[in-house]
Amino acid sequence: MPKTGALSQLMQALRCLPGVGPKSAQRMTFHLLQRDRRGARNLAESLLAALEKIGHCIQCRTLTEGELCRICANPGRDRTQLCVVETPAEVYAIDQATGFKGVFFVLNGRLSPLDGIGPNELRLDLLEQRLASGEVKEIILATNTTVEGEATAHYISELARQNGIRTTRIAYGVPFGGELEYVDGATLAHSFNGRKDY
Amino acid sequence: MPKTGALSQLMQALRCLPGVGPKSAQRMTFHLLQRDRRGARNLAESLLAALEKIGHCIQCRTLTEGELCRICANPGRDRTQLCVVETPAEVYAIDQATGFKGVFFVLNGRLSPLDGIGPNELRLDLLEQRLASGEVKEIILATNTTVEGEATAHYISELARQNGIRTTRIAYGVPFGGELEYVDGATLAHSFNGRKDY
Ligand SMILES: [Zn+2]
Ligand SMILES: [Zn+2]
Repeated sequence: MPKTGALSQLMQALRCLPGVGPKSAQRMTFHLLQRDRRGARNLAESLLAALEKIGHCIQCRTLTEGELCRICANPGRDRTQLCVVETPAEVYAIDQATGFKGVFFVLNGRLSPLDGIGPNELRLDLLEQRLASGEVKEIILATNTTVEGEATAHYISELARQNGIRTTRIAYGVPFGGELEYVDGATLAHSFNGRKDY
Repeated sequence: MPKTGALSQLMQALRCLPGVGPKSAQRMTFHLLQRDRRGARNLAESLLAALEKIGHCIQCRTLTEGELCRICANPGRDRTQLCVVETPAEVYAIDQATGFKGVFFVLNGRLSPLDGIGPNELRLDLLEQRLASGEVKEIILATNTTVEGEATAHYISELARQNGIRTTRIAYGVPFGGELEYVDGATLAHSFNGRKDY
């Protein structure tokens, strides 16, 4: 029966997408091959292009094409305000939803000693260098409100204090324990603009 | 900001998947690039392989690699029982869930005069040829229980009657108005094995 190699392989491959189980993968496979081959080809090509072109910004470590992301490459951004987030998705969310004109630093993780993730794994040395340069006047902590996110925020606020830099935390308008990237834009903007000294 | 070309293009491309809106596409994009590049590459390659290799079986018109699908190519299948379904997804579902050992005919649609879909568009001439050959002893109608599905079943039962062929309809154990491909395997098996003369 039509559980041919290429068909079942595609069903399996779609499972790498978050939230896609066996039933969804099956539905997607038949939809693509039966009704949207053009979309399927475009998806394959977009995946390959993204994999080839997209790496991490050498300055803020968000996902980007080229060495520097658009924010870091933009001379109009205010380098005295540095917003620290856990993931590139959060840079994206904050930049889309808020009026923030500063720059970012992406941890690509959060402190989690039990999982072996410490300051070295998050490259907090890069952040320290940046703080030591004297350019930054305010650090905005936008880590998540999870236990690890809070611990990470605390650690960075200590680094900031040592360098005499003001530290703020985005306001708790976001649902406690929630992940920033899934919060709607309005809530996120409100929370961001209502940030307080930490 | 990181809404670079390749990134936003990938977010857009993922929207071709059924059930994937802008938020899901964004989440999938960051997940793939940040946490599962290997899965992303595998998905791209599986899509291209499927597009290249998979077409329609010349006999039953389900999706398959090569000219004939595994069912039509299998000499052990009972060619006297012909199950008529609307889509390849339903061939897949019935073959996985039931003990059916006959063969299929895939309409790749359903009669819908208002949308300009008549017997010609469904290639019912191919079905008529098959019925006229004398090989088929029973037609099992497994079209959906929608208005169009019922009309299609009725039309095919008339063709069968003209050729003196017994027609059965799978039992209504499936939720009325539901799409076969989303029904769980046990219900589908029950419904299939409890089919009645039509
Ligand atoms: Zn950057
Ligand atoms: Zn076939």
